[in-house]
Amino acid sequence: MRTQAVVMRELGDESVLHLEDVELAAPGPGEVLLRVLAVAVNHLDLELRDGRSRMPLTFPHVLGRELVGEVVEVGDPAGSEWSAGDRVVLLPHVPCGRCRHCLTGSANICLAGWMPGIHGWGGYARHVLAPVRGLRHVPDLPVEVLAALPISFGTAWRALHSAASVVTGDWVLVPGAGGGLGHASVQVAALAGARVIGLVRSAAKADFVKACGAEHVVLTDTDGWPDEVRGLTDGRGVDVVVEHVGGDSFEGCLAALAPRGTLVVAGGHGGEHPRLDVIEVFRNELRVHGVRSQRPDDVERVLDLAAAGRLRPQVDQVFSLEQAADAHRRVASRQAVGKVVLVP
Amino acid sequence: MRTQAVVMRELGDESVLHLEDVELAAPGPGEVLLRVLAVAVNHLDLELRDGRSRMPLTFPHVLGRELVGEVVEVGDPAGSEWSAGDRVVLLPHVPCGRCRHCLTGSANICLAGWMPGIHGWGGYARHVLAPVRGLRHVPDLPVEVLAALPISFGTAWRALHSAASVVTGDWVLVPGAGGGLGHASVQVAALAGARVIGLVRSAAKADFVKACGAEHVVLTDTDGWPDEVRGLTDGRGVDVVVEHVGGDSFEGCLAALAPRGTLVVAGGHGGEHPRLDVIEVFRNELRVHGVRSQRPDDVERVLDLAAAGRLRPQVDQVFSLEQAADAHRRVASRQAVGKVVLVP
Amino acid sequence: MRTQAVVMRELGDESVLHLEDVELAAPGPGEVLLRVLAVAVNHLDLELRDGRSRMPLTFPHVLGRELVGEVVEVGDPAGSEWSAGDRVVLLPHVPCGRCRHCLTGSANICLAGWMPGIHGWGGYARHVLAPVRGLRHVPDLPVEVLAALPISFGTAWRALHSAASVVTGDWVLVPGAGGGLGHASVQVAALAGARVIGLVRSAAKADFVKACGAEHVVLTDTDGWPDEVRGLTDGRGVDVVVEHVGGDSFEGCLAALAPRGTLVVAGGHGGEHPRLDVIEVFRNELRVHGVRSQRPDDVERVLDLAAAGRLRPQVDQVFSLEQAADAHRRVASRQAVGKVVLVP
Amino acid sequence: MRTQAVVMRELGDESVLHLEDVELAAPGPGEVLLRVLAVAVNHLDLELRDGRSRMPLTFPHVLGRELVGEVVEVGDPAGSEWSAGDRVVLLPHVPCGRCRHCLTGSANICLAGWMPGIHGWGGYARHVLAPVRGLRHVPDLPVEVLAALPISFGTAWRALHSAASVVTGDWVLVPGAGGGLGHASVQVAALAGARVIGLVRSAAKADFVKACGAEHVVLTDTDGWPDEVRGLTDGRGVDVVVEHVGGDSFEGCLAALAPRGTLVVAGGHGGEHPRLDVIEVFRNELRVHGVRSQRPDDVERVLDLAAAGRLRPQVDQVFSLEQAADAHRRVASRQAVGKVVLVP
Ligand SMILES: [Zn+2]
Ligand SMILES: [Zn+2]
Ligand SMILES: [Zn+2]
Ligand SMILES: [Zn+2]
Repeated sequence: MRTQAVVMRELGDESVLHLEDVELAAPGPGEVLLRVLAVAVNHLDLELRDGRSRMPLTFPHVLGRELVGEVVEVGDPAGSEWSAGDRVVLLPHVPCGRCRHCLTGSANICLAGWMPGIHGWGGYARHVLAPVRGLRHVPDLPVEVLAALPISFGTAWRALHSAASVVTGDWVLVPGAGGGLGHASVQVAALAGARVIGLVRSAAKADFVKACGAEHVVLTDTDGWPDEVRGLTDGRGVDVVVEHVGGDSFEGCLAALAPRGTLVVAGGHGGEHPRLDVIEVFRNELRVHGVRSQRPDDVERVLDLAAAGRLRPQVDQVFSLEQAADAHRRVASRQAVGKVVLVP
Repeated sequence: MRTQAVVMRELGDESVLHLEDVELAAPGPGEVLLRVLAVAVNHLDLELRDGRSRMPLTFPHVLGRELVGEVVEVGDPAGSEWSAGDRVVLLPHVPCGRCRHCLTGSANICLAGWMPGIHGWGGYARHVLAPVRGLRHVPDLPVEVLAALPISFGTAWRALHSAASVVTGDWVLVPGAGGGLGHASVQVAALAGARVIGLVRSAAKADFVKACGAEHVVLTDTDGWPDEVRGLTDGRGVDVVVEHVGGDSFEGCLAALAPRGTLVVAGGHGGEHPRLDVIEVFRNELRVHGVRSQRPDDVERVLDLAAAGRLRPQVDQVFSLEQAADAHRRVASRQAVGKVVLVP
Repeated sequence: MRTQAVVMRELGDESVLHLEDVELAAPGPGEVLLRVLAVAVNHLDLELRDGRSRMPLTFPHVLGRELVGEVVEVGDPAGSEWSAGDRVVLLPHVPCGRCRHCLTGSANICLAGWMPGIHGWGGYARHVLAPVRGLRHVPDLPVEVLAALPISFGTAWRALHSAASVVTGDWVLVPGAGGGLGHASVQVAALAGARVIGLVRSAAKADFVKACGAEHVVLTDTDGWPDEVRGLTDGRGVDVVVEHVGGDSFEGCLAALAPRGTLVVAGGHGGEHPRLDVIEVFRNELRVHGVRSQRPDDVERVLDLAAAGRLRPQVDQVFSLEQAADAHRRVASRQAVGKVVLVP
Repeated sequence: MRTQAVVMRELGDESVLHLEDVELAAPGPGEVLLRVLAVAVNHLDLELRDGRSRMPLTFPHVLGRELVGEVVEVGDPAGSEWSAGDRVVLLPHVPCGRCRHCLTGSANICLAGWMPGIHGWGGYARHVLAPVRGLRHVPDLPVEVLAALPISFGTAWRALHSAASVVTGDWVLVPGAGGGLGHASVQVAALAGARVIGLVRSAAKADFVKACGAEHVVLTDTDGWPDEVRGLTDGRGVDVVVEHVGGDSFEGCLAALAPRGTLVVAGGHGGEHPRLDVIEVFRNELRVHGVRSQRPDDVERVLDLAAAGRLRPQVDQVFSLEQAADAHRRVASRQAVGKVVLVP
């Protein structure tokens, strides 16, 4: 069928994004055709676009990993659980279901997984082809809110519950607390009864971070912020950090950890090789845990909790497909409060 | 009473160690007087001696953290579990039993714990005063073997079982596999049914490491050793590392980890600030866990297993108290195969 | 000193409780004298009184395991952390700090622990002697509220967090949801973001249980309640049960568990030998976990959360020491909504 | 194709098993045709045959859940990992790879899983059709040994490592230690460095159980065996039980547990509703964990360890397909030492 998509034909700055007419094949067995209702813009999209992500793309390519859509056509409709008109999210990482990782509880690091917007055309489009295995029903929420859930909230869930086993009353530190993963981590931690400290670069986001559930907000514009954080915990340090910035942020957060605390690493393109103070690590039995993507059940959990009104993704700004380059600039500016979303 | 001890009156090289006549008080309530039967020399002793450890000492000081002795006198004998003639080890780290760490399963990081040879005079002596709470009965083994157990084997136990939860069939990588902690880690891992790869700097220790239970021994004299390790695991990487060297060893071991593998940090004075590749950490969900000291039950477990003949500490060389400086030189040379022990 | 206490001289019904003048020794080393400000009445007190608990008492005896007091005199005041006028709770189970259980994270099952009202005279008195090691500072809350915290909320904490590792969004089932442990479990689970179903015998307590945070309340007056519970979870079953009733309640709760769900057993005098359907247990990988008492940090956590207004113990009724027998009758009636407390 | 199979046309005793000529379809997409090299006979086969298992079968039916075969034909050979001549085991429980259980680490309880000999024709045959997803390569071992591995050793692995987290030095108790699951549990526990006590009904199997690695063997022909077991552990009790008998065995094993010990339930048709002493459960924080089937990686682990000579399945007796009824009688007799296997 004929539709429109934001096509990239090379790596580069925002100017490589062009809304074009494109041809999509009919959905094959195990596939559906979706009309895209909304798609979130993630930092990874920018890194894919300019090549920083180190992930190879095949051109022409369409970005868009986090999307909500409506089923238009089912490839093999007989006996299918899905039919035209169903509203769905597509998992940002569709696991293979067969490899050792998938069958041992680590579907989120499945190396044979399929990611829309990376391994195939993604959601910056009016329509997209999607594997049936990646579909999940969605609750009755605005489409731009649904599009803001899977990656940010799913990853926050994995970081806080699966990696760090956060418990009510724990102190949780969240760098970049006003951004996509940041505000999600604040909400997920607060919902578990944790005491949350958000880190922000500018005071402008402080009120928003508090509204998400942070008990304190600390500015990182001076070197003393790790001590300030420690002071808020009566000198003991925090139990959990959801780190995704890297570099100085990583090093400062490690310094703010309590004995036996856990620093979850969910990203780090702001400084890919921080120094690790191994003496502090073993003296205090600190733990550093990497976390990647989400498991399907993480996404299901956050959808359920959003449906119940207990998680509330914040949408910073909505753009049209024509404005995809502006949406990328907005994310790059690090001024966004919550998620940036495209609505075709 | 009058006895002899290797006294330090200042920080410095081996020459600060002098065997002298000293006066010991009678044991008070909660104390016993022990005749020292054997005391192991640990790297930490050298770092305490020359100041690298950053731990403050009060002079005159007597080193010696890992000792086996015979009870000579009990401070408050009425109703005591102990009496003259009992053979005991003294825990290298006697927890307070009251603090939050102690009562939540982390007695090994008790900040109010008492360490012989650090917080009081240790075992480089003919006699030593010891807290009753730190005593444990010993099986019928040679005293120099008993002295070689608590720190190396206790720490190996904590690293492999408490931090890394090693499982039969896991691949375990052990840097410095011919040294005290190294050979203990090889044995503890092999006893759990793991497949062990030992790292050594020179081929001279390879046979010893294999005799401890390593399936493979890899030389670290070239840069390619992490790839060589990975090759031995069919490219997948190792599940667990017991790292205690720091610097390049840390970075190479991290590179040899399988997805979701755990690198335990039990030391690192060979390079206190290695660089951490956070991208690899989160893409592969790697984990870094610090481990400090041992819990009393770790020491009890390794004593039981040594008694049953299932762990066999290797004694490199036995020195007299007069030869304490030589013993330190032997440890510093990194030529020792197993533990260096003083027998008064 | 001369004071008054509710003295028992034999096992029996409420009539064995008599308020009398008694003599207390001066506090020795490691002890303090407390003026009792409030003491909660627990089911176990009734079982101790009539002999059902199987625990031996030495007569004359004074009950009272859960008390808040004010320090009157410190046995060895020099360098003590405590001084006259301090307000404290006394841990219901003061661990020894030396045994294997204490030093491996299981201080709550310390067999050498000391329990006020069991191993020594408890809090049904104007004054009580208490071990310094069992004291904890209290926040500024009404004394009857403080007295209602340690056992019910500490046990609920241990059951939900330590045994069952409850996670936000889990379904939690609480039998006896209107009682002491029950209402505490509802609150602790709700604070962690769980979805709570309370079981009650009569509709009279339903509103109270909902006010504690239960999403649903189910009456157990018919045999079909396990199916009703399962229906509320869309047929999947609950993830966690905090069982403390025994008998039919145990069996019904087990039948309401989801695959891989956990039934925590924190009591069971209502039927000490229920039948276990082992086929259901292995087919669905169900787990049954016993939980006993609380660890000191459990009590500290719930005190902190009560201070922050996030846990709110409910006091059913306050009695004087003279009314101790009436207080026991109130607890025995199972009509109490929350905790029954004596205020001297 | 035309082949032969042991066909059942109704539930009943051994006489319902008849070797017959049957017609098999050609393998479809995702399927292979296997020539059966060996198939183990399990207790569950007997329960399926006579209806005790409560699992519905479709007649005519062919039993056989644990089989090793050789690929004869691949349904869709293009690009397949498999080709004619490959020797394989078929997983006894082929998970769907899509459901919530599969993608959260519980593939072994997948309700949409496919089990040969239950959901389709199994291995009591000269040929069988098998899903590609259930195939695993096998090491170079005798076929009757390979057939003895997946269920007994895979389940022992899951019980000891996944459910009970057995650690070197733990005491492990194994009822029915001379049978299929029993001897596997003894070996898996011993390989992890545990101290194993085997329970047997008759002295005839004692030597075999010791040869598998048990330190002690206890006869269950008197009521005092739980005390005898406890005595072997210096009164403390065992840390882990692998229970699969039910009834009195369950109750006795629970009584032999140490505080915080774990009783794994992997079966129980010998008494499906034992009584649970809940007072003991909560006083000692005992744990009961159900375990079902195996995860694919459990099977892979035990194949690897058998290939390395570290696990050694015992084959009691080999029967031909014509002797299938005799093989069932042998299993029913509970005289078998290790596994009973059919070789076509
Ligand atoms: Zn996969
Ligand atoms: Zn301590
Ligand atoms: Zn204790
Ligand atoms: Zn499944």
